[in-house]
Amino acid sequence: MDGSKAPVSEHVETSKAAVLEVVGSRGSRAAGRGLAVVDLILRFLAVIATAGSAIAMGTTNQTLPFFTQFLRFKAQYSDLPTLTFFVVVNSIVAAYLVLSIPLSIVHIIRSRAKSSRLVLVFFDAAMLALVTSAASAATAIVYLAHKGNARANWFAICQQFDSFCERISGSLIGSFAAMALLVMLIVLSAVALARR
Amino acid sequence: MDGSKAPVSEHVETSKAAVLEVVGSRGSRAAGRGLAVVDLILRFLAVIATAGSAIAMGTTNQTLPFFTQFLRFKAQYSDLPTLTFFVVVNSIVAAYLVLSIPLSIVHIIRSRAKSSRLVLVFFDAAMLALVTSAASAATAIVYLAHKGNARANWFAICQQFDSFCERISGSLIGSFAAMALLVMLIVLSAVALARR
Repeated sequence: MDGSKAPVSEHVETSKAAVLEVVGSRGSRAAGRGLAVVDLILRFLAVIATAGSAIAMGTTNQTLPFFTQFLRFKAQYSDLPTLTFFVVVNSIVAAYLVLSIPLSIVHIIRSRAKSSRLVLVFFDAAMLALVTSAASAATAIVYLAHKGNARANWFAICQQFDSFCERISGSLIGSFAAMALLVMLIVLSAVALARR
Repeated sequence: MDGSKAPVSEHVETSKAAVLEVVGSRGSRAAGRGLAVVDLILRFLAVIATAGSAIAMGTTNQTLPFFTQFLRFKAQYSDLPTLTFFVVVNSIVAAYLVLSIPLSIVHIIRSRAKSSRLVLVFFDAAMLALVTSAASAATAIVYLAHKGNARANWFAICQQFDSFCERISGSLIGSFAAMALLVMLIVLSAVALARR
């Protein structure tokens, strides 16, 4: 229902209204394009955050400078299943975000697209749930590694594996940043859908 | 831009189009109302799921039938900080969902509301992140309680506290159901915004 499609009438008010509407529609189209550009930038940042998290966690290991006959004291992410889950999920989310970038570029050109935005909202929400679950499960385990739990008789392992613990704690940051970025992406898509 | 506001013209096609549009707008209003009703039902289910999770986890404790001079072997949710976090977050999300129900009822009556839907999308996404983080952090700890971790020297505590472990495992279900419901609520709101 574009105002420019209204039948030509002799009422001056009507034509004025039509002109105003065309101008308004151009302004709103520019704003919609602005939203799509912000969407693209946020997606790039989220790719960097999740890929960085996955790489930082995946390349962490520490070997202690002493060993017994039976054991070498070596820690790496795959010793704890939760940290493996963290690496896998961050890789999946980074891959999804890379695949969503072309769609985001399409939205800059066609700022009135509807169904493709709905698809993005759904997958963004699912990826938000996925990356949040990985980040917080890993956080629970990292917390345990730092503090231990006296009631359950689980000892803090960070006294021995100090640099390992520092590195896995640091790699959580990217995931938490990606969470915030995905919430913003969902809200941006909803705003773009509401503007139409 | 309602078709009924078009200036009266003698072109039969135009008036036909206007009639079709009014009918179409009534149909879409009914569909919008249907979406709002589904939204309300999903919110009720999510309240039950999160409140149920919080109550099931919060009321869990187990005392073993033997004790030493120094220790009574007793397990409850507050022994593990992650499970306390789980109870708190599920209570917060349940409270938010109860508070969002009046707004959802308003959307049944005013199915074209825009800004209030955007507010709901934002808070739903934030609550999705919150409940997911609680559910998966608790899952990581419950997994550890069941399986332990040989590399970190953390022992499975479920051999002793079997009914405690069963109960805390069960209480996770509500949270995961709430996650799925919140993703559906976000998509529903996006569809409602796209229909306008």
